[in-house]
Amino acid sequence: MSDPKRPFILVSNDDGIFSPGIKALAEVASEFGDVYIVAPDKEQSAVGHSITIQVPLRSSKFTVADKFDGEAVNGTPADCVKLAHGQLLDRKPDLVVSGINHGSNAGINIMYSGTVSAATEGTILGYPSIAVSCTDFNEDANLNGCKEAARRVISFVLKNGLPKGITLNVNAPAGEFTGIKWTRQADSRYVEEYESRTDPFNRAYYWLTGKFELLDEGKDSDIHVLNDGKASVTPIQYDLTAYNLLKNVDDESLNKGE
Amino acid sequence: MSDPKRPFILVSNDDGIFSPGIKALAEVASEFGDVYIVAPDKEQSAVGHSITIQVPLRSSKFTVADKFDGEAVNGTPADCVKLAHGQLLDRKPDLVVSGINHGSNAGINIMYSGTVSAATEGTILGYPSIAVSCTDFNEDANLNGCKEAARRVISFVLKNGLPKGITLNVNAPAGEFTGIKWTRQADSRYVEEYESRTDPFNRAYYWLTGKFELLDEGKDSDIHVLNDGKASVTPIQYDLTAYNLLKNVDDESLNKGE
Repeated sequence: MSDPKRPFILVSNDDGIFSPGIKALAEVASEFGDVYIVAPDKEQSAVGHSITIQVPLRSSKFTVADKFDGEAVNGTPADCVKLAHGQLLDRKPDLVVSGINHGSNAGINIMYSGTVSAATEGTILGYPSIAVSCTDFNEDANLNGCKEAARRVISFVLKNGLPKGITLNVNAPAGEFTGIKWTRQADSRYVEEYESRTDPFNRAYYWLTGKFELLDEGKDSDIHVLNDGKASVTPIQYDLTAYNLLKNVDDESLNKGE
Repeated sequence: MSDPKRPFILVSNDDGIFSPGIKALAEVASEFGDVYIVAPDKEQSAVGHSITIQVPLRSSKFTVADKFDGEAVNGTPADCVKLAHGQLLDRKPDLVVSGINHGSNAGINIMYSGTVSAATEGTILGYPSIAVSCTDFNEDANLNGCKEAARRVISFVLKNGLPKGITLNVNAPAGEFTGIKWTRQADSRYVEEYESRTDPFNRAYYWLTGKFELLDEGKDSDIHVLNDGKASVTPIQYDLTAYNLLKNVDDESLNKGE
């Protein structure tokens, strides 16, 4: 499946194996090593860290852009990385990359992102892992800047590794590359969330529409750096413990409920 | 819908509106205030922080145990809380509670949990929010200890509030209550992940089976405290930034990819 002397890189995403973004990321990854793609067989946006437990998974061999071998899986991005690790690969990857997502995964979007969850699952399984997203939803957006950001971050990670439990979440604007910065996740949320409609049978239904709201004025956030035209890299962790709060609480008042 | 002089508590879960756990949690919540249930119309375990964007949501009025009003939604736990906030409730909740889940949401399970994601969505929307899970998967497990843990944590939160961005993740063993402790998320993962089978048409399919593996010897972890027979409360956050790593990196080496 791959040359044991070159790094072996697993590529996944959430837009599905047919998306332009996964081809772009496979191209960049192939400059550094042998690439194998395991990705959803259809779009899986906003699935978060969902995994499939009520139906079995299946995979079909696939070739992307006539040059990258891979498999399409009837599951989520996290399923793809788990199944690749547990079943499909004959060699442990040196790196897991996910993307390039068509749409931003900065700020609160990190929580809902299938692209990020594929990389996080790679980290949980012990592999250095990177998620890459383009802030432009358009499928024919210019991904040059995203590819260059991915190139530099892949180079950085293959050279330095990553601490246990850390995933890198890369975002970049559409267009050419103008630099990349370390950032933190911007405080942000969605407001005005649903549009209510009535169907022909007079029953209500609701479309999710929410407007993105930035609550963060810091210049070190991912969204600030992206709005400034540069690429951002936010190190994220799957240990969600709020350690700062733990310093200031005691078991006695909790046991009394007060 | 509710008495404006009493606290108003939104109840959700991931096992669906028919589960014994949501009835148990609604009972505890109703000791403190007026309860409204908005929960998935079917089981949504392991959906993580998935939200529904490709089909519209619908809701149907529902009464649980002949006494708690609510609505069943054709979506995920995070959808339920978003839709309740954006569309279904005529009053802002003072508290969001999710559960009681049938099965542990301690350690790495936090990442995959729909129960936790409903509470996290409540936190993102600005409400004090609590997830409650029983470590026993059995639907007829004795939930007394879980209910007592929920009672003390709800009391604590209604009295003290919660800092912005923090969700409380409560787990308790089946059986009677023997105390509750503040904890952190245990380092843990799943291994041996898939069972491969062949269908009658000679095609492979894979069932997720993974065995849970505890990688953490600390006595302050959620899983240690649960194994010791007590309930655990882990404060978690949706800001995933790994701030410790940010202290030790510089943009120049990243821009060089080295």
